[in-house]
Amino acid sequence: MAIATAIAIANADEESLTHPLLTRPLHPSTSNTMSQVAIVGANVCPIESLDYEIVENDPFKQDWRSHGCIQICQYIFMKWTLCFLIGFIVSLVGFFNNLAVENIAGMKFVVTSNMMLANKYLAAFLVFLASNFGLTLFAIVITAFISPEAAGSGIPEVKAYLNGVDAPGIFSLRTLIVKIAGSISAVSSSLLVGKAGPLVHTGACVAAIMGQGGSKKYRLTWRWLRFFKNDRDRRDLVTCGSAAGIAAAFRAPVGGVLFALEEMASWWRSALLWRAFFTAAVVAIVLRALIDVCLRGQCGLFGTGGLIMFDVTSENVTYHLKDVPPVLLLGVIGGIFGSLYNFILEKVLRIYSLINEKGTGYRILLACSISIFTSCLLFGLPWLASCRSCPADATEPCPTIGQSGNYKKFQCSPGHYNDLASLIFNTNDDAIRNLFSKNTDTEFHRSTMLAFFVTCFFLSIFSYGIVVPAGLFVPVIVTGASYGRFVGMLIGSHSNLNHGLFAVLGSASLLGGSMRMTVSLCVIILELTNNLLLLPLIMLVLLVSKTVADAFNGNIYDHIMKLKGFPYLEAHADPYMRQLTVGDVVMGPLQLFHGIEKVSNIVHVLKTTRHNGFPVIDESPSESPVLFGLILRAHLITLLKKKAFLLAPVRAGIDAFKQFSADDFAKKGLGNGDNIEDIELTNEEMEMFIDLHPFTNTSPYTVVETMSLAKALILFRQVGLRHLLVIPKISNRSPVVGILTRHDFMPEHILGLYPLLVNSRWKKLRIRFPHLDKIF
Amino acid sequence: MAIATAIAIANADEESLTHPLLTRPLHPSTSNTMSQVAIVGANVCPIESLDYEIVENDPFKQDWRSHGCIQICQYIFMKWTLCFLIGFIVSLVGFFNNLAVENIAGMKFVVTSNMMLANKYLAAFLVFLASNFGLTLFAIVITAFISPEAAGSGIPEVKAYLNGVDAPGIFSLRTLIVKIAGSISAVSSSLLVGKAGPLVHTGACVAAIMGQGGSKKYRLTWRWLRFFKNDRDRRDLVTCGSAAGIAAAFRAPVGGVLFALEEMASWWRSALLWRAFFTAAVVAIVLRALIDVCLRGQCGLFGTGGLIMFDVTSENVTYHLKDVPPVLLLGVIGGIFGSLYNFILEKVLRIYSLINEKGTGYRILLACSISIFTSCLLFGLPWLASCRSCPADATEPCPTIGQSGNYKKFQCSPGHYNDLASLIFNTNDDAIRNLFSKNTDTEFHRSTMLAFFVTCFFLSIFSYGIVVPAGLFVPVIVTGASYGRFVGMLIGSHSNLNHGLFAVLGSASLLGGSMRMTVSLCVIILELTNNLLLLPLIMLVLLVSKTVADAFNGNIYDHIMKLKGFPYLEAHADPYMRQLTVGDVVMGPLQLFHGIEKVSNIVHVLKTTRHNGFPVIDESPSESPVLFGLILRAHLITLLKKKAFLLAPVRAGIDAFKQFSADDFAKKGLGNGDNIEDIELTNEEMEMFIDLHPFTNTSPYTVVETMSLAKALILFRQVGLRHLLVIPKISNRSPVVGILTRHDFMPEHILGLYPLLVNSRWKKLRIRFPHLDKIF
Repeated sequence: MAIATAIAIANADEESLTHPLLTRPLHPSTSNTMSQVAIVGANVCPIESLDYEIVENDPFKQDWRSHGCIQICQYIFMKWTLCFLIGFIVSLVGFFNNLAVENIAGMKFVVTSNMMLANKYLAAFLVFLASNFGLTLFAIVITAFISPEAAGSGIPEVKAYLNGVDAPGIFSLRTLIVKIAGSISAVSSSLLVGKAGPLVHTGACVAAIMGQGGSKKYRLTWRWLRFFKNDRDRRDLVTCGSAAGIAAAFRAPVGGVLFALEEMASWWRSALLWRAFFTAAVVAIVLRALIDVCLRGQCGLFGTGGLIMFDVTSENVTYHLKDVPPVLLLGVIGGIFGSLYNFILEKVLRIYSLINEKGTGYRILLACSISIFTSCLLFGLPWLASCRSCPADATEPCPTIGQSGNYKKFQCSPGHYNDLASLIFNTNDDAIRNLFSKNTDTEFHRSTMLAFFVTCFFLSIFSYGIVVPAGLFVPVIVTGASYGRFVGMLIGSHSNLNHGLFAVLGSASLLGGSMRMTVSLCVIILELTNNLLLLPLIMLVLLVSKTVADAFNGNIYDHIMKLKGFPYLEAHADPYMRQLTVGDVVMGPLQLFHGIEKVSNIVHVLKTTRHNGFPVIDESPSESPVLFGLILRAHLITLLKKKAFLLAPVRAGIDAFKQFSADDFAKKGLGNGDNIEDIELTNEEMEMFIDLHPFTNTSPYTVVETMSLAKALILFRQVGLRHLLVIPKISNRSPVVGILTRHDFMPEHILGLYPLLVNSRWKKLRIRFPHLDKIF
Repeated sequence: MAIATAIAIANADEESLTHPLLTRPLHPSTSNTMSQVAIVGANVCPIESLDYEIVENDPFKQDWRSHGCIQICQYIFMKWTLCFLIGFIVSLVGFFNNLAVENIAGMKFVVTSNMMLANKYLAAFLVFLASNFGLTLFAIVITAFISPEAAGSGIPEVKAYLNGVDAPGIFSLRTLIVKIAGSISAVSSSLLVGKAGPLVHTGACVAAIMGQGGSKKYRLTWRWLRFFKNDRDRRDLVTCGSAAGIAAAFRAPVGGVLFALEEMASWWRSALLWRAFFTAAVVAIVLRALIDVCLRGQCGLFGTGGLIMFDVTSENVTYHLKDVPPVLLLGVIGGIFGSLYNFILEKVLRIYSLINEKGTGYRILLACSISIFTSCLLFGLPWLASCRSCPADATEPCPTIGQSGNYKKFQCSPGHYNDLASLIFNTNDDAIRNLFSKNTDTEFHRSTMLAFFVTCFFLSIFSYGIVVPAGLFVPVIVTGASYGRFVGMLIGSHSNLNHGLFAVLGSASLLGGSMRMTVSLCVIILELTNNLLLLPLIMLVLLVSKTVADAFNGNIYDHIMKLKGFPYLEAHADPYMRQLTVGDVVMGPLQLFHGIEKVSNIVHVLKTTRHNGFPVIDESPSESPVLFGLILRAHLITLLKKKAFLLAPVRAGIDAFKQFSADDFAKKGLGNGDNIEDIELTNEEMEMFIDLHPFTNTSPYTVVETMSLAKALILFRQVGLRHLLVIPKISNRSPVVGILTRHDFMPEHILGLYPLLVNSRWKKLRIRFPHLDKIF
């Protein structure tokens, strides 16, 4: 598949650039050919839908009745313990991630600076280049060879999971380790990549691994965790994990909860908010305690455990009506740049995916060339900047010598510093801190700021697509801050706001224009900058930038998710879905089972189809057939494996499922499901029967075939279904018309079936204003 | 009904205190006798369910198809304009509310203080008493006579509306005006009531009135607003309105959005978050501009346009591990006091409702006696406090003479001030500001603080239930701050935290213990106190207090809502619902219509039942009857009114609904629905027929009768239904078994049908840990 895709893309002309990477065949077809694969991390993997429906079959009911007070107490205790552990582990990871980056990158900058101080410029460049190259190589090699799922930010994958799309490997222990190590080395290697996205993925990983109840492979299982063997509880844990990720990355607990709520989660309820809040609070408290330790100087050379925390507090920020126009301007610019950023990034990712698909060698080559290019740029550009003399009232030594600092000497003579090097020849966190700082209005030159902005804008786009763990938050913040400050310089004395504030507002505007969040971004920026008085300005800038950007294209994560081929189920229905009925998109041939079915039939159907749910009907000679329910593939395989067979086609007794425990029908861990090919049956067994009645979900959700697709989507999405049975309007036909799955609601599928809709008024409207439907 | 309830309550013994005010008859019954009334504001009113289902009948489909680009642009434009107007109006109301209170109450305190300065103590007392009495009388009279719906905080009513329970009058123009005027006079009259709740109700009112598209009565309608004639769009607007309310009350825009999300809304989606954020941003920006005006001194004697904004910023709050135990202690105390507060408040409200039900005279009497009692207490208590000498370094004149200030002279000699009077003989906002302020650790005496706490705790409970607009937020904040500061005094030098911080944390703990919100409270408190460094401490205290309080009882608003009899639909299913199937609770006799029905039959059914939806079936001689769909009472009445009759029972042609406009089937404004009794038909017309097919919703959501109640509840609640059709498992019976409505899911109804469940293991567990199910 990977190769087929690669070829398809290799033949891509200009037109194909507007289609998802995983295109469906162009010849029209009557069956749903939506591919069941997506690009997870860097590789094409099979994907599977999650199922949040309560399966009401007899084992489930009996299991439920057997739950006593002790089980409930175990469940509650475990749930809160897991949340606590998620918060605790993620905050430790976030802290050590930060510490490692500060020490590795700090050491690198000190060594090179010291060499430059001794005028050994070439040696300094080589050391800089080599260390960056080595770190990047390490990151790419572990990612490409050990866990390609860890490539990229991971936010699209986690978002798709929370929408109900599962892919094996995204939450494995291997991915977790590679994500952490790769993120540290990639960020340390001066690539312009962030750590927030990888931390969100890390948090989700930690949550999913703990929720799975250990590992069957390593015989680490715990009975108490059996309650979490279902998709609903795992979804909740992963949501908490992603909240913890942002909370740890930015030390923004409330922002983390809101990020999980606004951007990540597709289903939300009050109890989950409370648990996510608990998890984020654990993160906040643990981080606060660890920073206390670090402030006492026990965290290595450069680790003050800073985490990003850009204190811009001018105690009394004052602003008046005349400061509003510059802020509006920033918002508009942010919207334009943000949508442009998304547009270019998408194109670059398409080109990169052509290269990455060609093989691991190409991936490594790409990453290494980006690393070398970045190193050359970072080392070369400051030479173009003129030296500035140190301010008399500098709060730190100027120029900085022999330590990490903000007034980089670079090639300048004593008493002078290189302002571009202060931004570019530094870690991203330090650059942001510089840009956000107050009382530095004279520190930078306009041309420096412009050069820095252009560098960041393109470097961040070119760095994201390589096969290492890489986030987008920090690059966007630093890019936004640079043009914000540039605008502030241009406006100069026409505004009361200092340039640091302009930088903050610039970051907000680019974040708003690229990621299109509102409340969560607002809170994250407030928590980053620790100044609540800015709130009305930040709200204003976010409003404007999101509105402007929405006129051009969508959220960056949605773009990436679509590019990767995840069948993401939107909450709103596209207008043309109101014109179609469910009957228009559902299609056969439908595989049905009888209440008492022959084993060989079941085996045959399971081997020849890839469906995951099958309607069970009861037929009696006198009456028309009746829909009994829906049985899942996983349950059928369990039945076959346990050989619960009958010699004759009669209803099994009440104790038919005595040999099963509830665990047999519980959701397996990721990728641990059994395969039909692994089950071996004798010829005698093949001639026997299974009574499916006790194991069938007797109350699947159903819709009538005349219901509009839009209305069915509401049910499907709100309840979180995997299968939706379609029943006929007139009941004297077969009792079930078909099954709707996630793929049947995908616009690509529907518009493939009804190409005329593409040209209809509705679709046209949708194309002209591509995101109009989001505004509804 | 009101009288019946009153009598029922008058006969109440101790046991009845644990039941809702509106009890259903005790004799078991086979039909759903859940009352269709609830206490809205202060009076018993009929209630009705809202319907968020897409009604797919022919007029709807045609209307939808006729929507072109212009209509969509109108819709989008109107939606954002309405949000802007809501934000704008609510911020103006909030601002002037605050200004009026500051000026009225400030004037009152200055006049009385000046009299006391002249040693005219009795006259001062009489003026104080009379002005409070007059203001309270004004509030109670307008509330009781003009709009009893405006009584109380309004948050429970709005929350119920957002859950799908409508009551006429809660969002009328009358209610809005009374709410604003009553809230101003009640708060100014020194009653310990808040303004946040009334502002939320005000915001919701403004939103609902604007969404209704003007008033038909006053001929104020606008075609552009026709798109909002459905329950979904109105729900969204009301959500935005309630967010604007909190944003305006506390100048906490993000807190407002989160409050609407966490506490108010039952349905939420990403687009709504974005609109609520927009509305709150408008509030924030308008308020900021108005405050700019006020800071120039153009807002009257006392109006610095302060709004509550308690700047406690010690620039660098430092705290370490040893400060955690006091914070935990505060959390535990807050949890205990919070649940106690809820418990006592509920009991007091029950007693008050006995009095209030007796008639308007009793209501006025109750309110007046509370006012007199409050005045006596506020004027009397400070005499018990000893005078303290003014600090040498006081930042404001001490004692305050002839103006509003914090060092109240009261009865003290010159150079001294009365610390209890500084808290008690002041507006609530000033008291909170005093309590939260830093560097005032020596200003108050322990006994003062204890006396103030006890006063606030009970006064706030006794003041809430009287028939005036009254909120709970500010009383809870002031009560919490007082014991927080008291705890801080007790701990003294064992902690680094100053007493102002203890007061903030105390407020947080009591809010958490009483209202049980998490993220929204956290953000509201941060925005109030403008200090983000407190975040980890506030999160910790909220976690602990909510956890402790949840062990005892529930959220105060949920208690009040239950007490008022609103059928609130919880998101989670109670455990016993898993043991029951839908067929167990649905009951007949069911009223069915045929596809082509005689007019007289329809009229008879509409007159004899109060159902709002009727299944329509098609019967043919050869086959078994088929479910065609569901028709709504409102649509039937429209058909009868327009006399769309046929002479013979034949299918109407395609142009059957030419005489109808989409508007006829749109949702009417509150209480504007037509009544079946108002329609007069001749005998000939009664013998004619109506073809119901074009007007029937052909795709109602259905569930099979064997589905568990818990699973049906998920569908009902998630999709936001009013009617859920139950179809039989075996189709050769009638094609529909019954209809489930909101009331069929109410625990009171179900446990009335199956009293044994009350004694079952599950129910027992639920009673022992009453809120265990919330934790799930």
